[in-house]
Amino acid sequence: MKTLKVALLGCGNVGAQVARILLTDAEVLADRAGATLELTGIAVRNIGAKRDVEVPADLFTTDAEALIDESDIVIELLGGMEPASSLIRRALSRGASVITGNKALLAAQGGELNALAFENNAQLRYEAAVAGAIPILRPIMDSLSGDKITKVMGIVNGTTNFILDAMDSTGAQFDDVLKEAQDLGYAEADPTADVGGHDAASKAAILASLAFHTDFAFEDVHCEGITKITAADVAAAKDAGMVIKLLAIAERSEAGIGVRVHPTLLRRTHPLAAVHGAFNAVFVEAENAGELMFYGAGAGGAPTASAVMGDTVAVARRMASGGPLPAISAQQPVKVMDFCDITTSYWIGLEVNDEPGVLASIAQIFASNGVSIETLRQDSNPESNAGTAELLLVTHRSTEKALAATLAAVADLAAIKEVTSVLRVEGN
Amino acid sequence: MKTLKVALLGCGNVGAQVARILLTDAEVLADRAGATLELTGIAVRNIGAKRDVEVPADLFTTDAEALIDESDIVIELLGGMEPASSLIRRALSRGASVITGNKALLAAQGGELNALAFENNAQLRYEAAVAGAIPILRPIMDSLSGDKITKVMGIVNGTTNFILDAMDSTGAQFDDVLKEAQDLGYAEADPTADVGGHDAASKAAILASLAFHTDFAFEDVHCEGITKITAADVAAAKDAGMVIKLLAIAERSEAGIGVRVHPTLLRRTHPLAAVHGAFNAVFVEAENAGELMFYGAGAGGAPTASAVMGDTVAVARRMASGGPLPAISAQQPVKVMDFCDITTSYWIGLEVNDEPGVLASIAQIFASNGVSIETLRQDSNPESNAGTAELLLVTHRSTEKALAATLAAVADLAAIKEVTSVLRVEGN
Repeated sequence: MKTLKVALLGCGNVGAQVARILLTDAEVLADRAGATLELTGIAVRNIGAKRDVEVPADLFTTDAEALIDESDIVIELLGGMEPASSLIRRALSRGASVITGNKALLAAQGGELNALAFENNAQLRYEAAVAGAIPILRPIMDSLSGDKITKVMGIVNGTTNFILDAMDSTGAQFDDVLKEAQDLGYAEADPTADVGGHDAASKAAILASLAFHTDFAFEDVHCEGITKITAADVAAAKDAGMVIKLLAIAERSEAGIGVRVHPTLLRRTHPLAAVHGAFNAVFVEAENAGELMFYGAGAGGAPTASAVMGDTVAVARRMASGGPLPAISAQQPVKVMDFCDITTSYWIGLEVNDEPGVLASIAQIFASNGVSIETLRQDSNPESNAGTAELLLVTHRSTEKALAATLAAVADLAAIKEVTSVLRVEGN
Repeated sequence: MKTLKVALLGCGNVGAQVARILLTDAEVLADRAGATLELTGIAVRNIGAKRDVEVPADLFTTDAEALIDESDIVIELLGGMEPASSLIRRALSRGASVITGNKALLAAQGGELNALAFENNAQLRYEAAVAGAIPILRPIMDSLSGDKITKVMGIVNGTTNFILDAMDSTGAQFDDVLKEAQDLGYAEADPTADVGGHDAASKAAILASLAFHTDFAFEDVHCEGITKITAADVAAAKDAGMVIKLLAIAERSEAGIGVRVHPTLLRRTHPLAAVHGAFNAVFVEAENAGELMFYGAGAGGAPTASAVMGDTVAVARRMASGGPLPAISAQQPVKVMDFCDITTSYWIGLEVNDEPGVLASIAQIFASNGVSIETLRQDSNPESNAGTAELLLVTHRSTEKALAATLAAVADLAAIKEVTSVLRVEGN
């Protein structure tokens, strides 16, 4: 049986689990791959650091480049841009295959790295970069290769789902739940990348690139986080039989492909509404397959290592059998939509003076901007706000541009006290 | 670009959709596969029959063998054992690759057919055979190839899920809901294969074979259908915060691998409990990945055709790039467990005389058979059954053998009027 030399770059949370699996499950992996996977070294910054798993000390090295130059397969789990990018390029240029979970790097340089792999007849795989253990990239690339995907909607960030789910079940405010998530280890000390939606935006770019056979970068993704979501928003959604989730959405329409990350209202009967805690799930719509959903752990050492090892065995299986790689399927030229042209439904809360004619004025503004109202609910305010009323509108799908114009005109009405909330609605 | 000749056997519900996609999406498919897929003929029994889609009349033939002998790829959608088996063997023996959705044939002859494909350097794929459009077989074979699956639990029959879901939401009896399902086209005039669990058992054998890298046949699957489930069972489950689903379960334990299909109680918070109507879903547990779920349409022409086309493109991609096939991963010798050795939890309803000492006698019998009681609820019966009480027990996991011995001894107690229900419980 052929032996393939495997280099591991990084030995953190995920890397330690990958090392454990390579060392303890060697026999099973060899059966599955048709080749022996020999872990030849682990490149780390600090050889003496404390590790989560027991690994023979002589495997550690600080010389990543020398390790790569002796390897058939390189598993990059350093994260960040550098030195990860240079090391991956070094491996691919040598014809070594690379497995990585580095979503930020892929969202920035995925197109280039894929092309470099192809030029060198090397394989580049990154299932672990999106939704941890959930097999989602390969099903999109392989199982759905005979279909046309129209939409991908994913809960791809566990931290924000944990926070929104806790706000939904306890009624607490964002800041209090964030603090609890930090105490429990579900959120980092600096939670910006998660709660600002940037992590989800990287994943959205990767998902959209694969689903639509093209190349999206982080900059192509419109990104809004969850920091402005209040307990009142969550309660109002609940009252309407809905729930707020941070979704990564990539959607094809006549006008092009739009990719966005923002807090989104979903009916509680939608399959994504039932995804609780730090779990992830990706909902896919395709012309023939209809609606599919993939659900599982989105993070964590062992689950993410499972995705890394699935890629590693697949890469090894192909290296063991020899033969050329399949050609990359043609990249389709696509029109990336401006965010202002994207269509969705909107949930709009307004506090208005409770006087005759207000409703007519508002309805007139929506109509003249071509934004059609699906449902409207009016409640008189309790005594504290006597003389005012609360309006809750849900619109049919319209463009961001039309909505912005509508809201600007509505805000100019003298009878409008405040626009209390604007949220997007999907799946209804 | 290389051209690959594709033969279609059968032009029913799914076949017609496959023909449509091959004809109308030819350009996209060629991009994805790196080869042109030319539909060279459709073998049918009756050329003049009415079809769901428009297909050039000169594609039809009644000579399946001649068509196969001129083809690179054969898509078999005839169903049943013969002539499907002979035709698939003819194609594979010639080195042509085969895509099929024929679950009954695969459950009977899957091991042989896979071996025949391998001997002839041909590919055999059958994603459409289990859970329609849902990518489940490839994720198990590829994405989870670096992990060890411990359990697969699936709702893999849409008819029975539709019936059980309707019983749950309406409180109706099985017979009434079955009739409604037949009127709506969700159940066949002869529903035996579905409601008897046989269709699910074929799929269980296929899932278990792939998940555990071995070869299970239909006969290895313990199979119970849903015909004995009553409105009272469904109501009692609902009352306890549970729902009854027909599950295909394959599970690895120290004692071996057990594969079974039976009505199963699940807590309503379990991801599978939220699978409604005719939808399918497969829940997978793996050592590193943890819990995963795959959800989507389990049947229907276009969804099933999506799975067939995903396999077709994958097969074509590999044929276009040339090169040898990866070796089949080693088949593990496994112990197929006798059903009596399988462990699960049980839900047991008893109608007993309301007299002192009954509970003690029952508890004593459970204890002496090593079956541990997790919860117990006792209700006095309404006046109609004065003097009797209803007991509802849920046990911890124990073997089928121990349970059978327990129930036999309990039924012998003079104070027992009736064992009103025995159902299995998973996921708690």
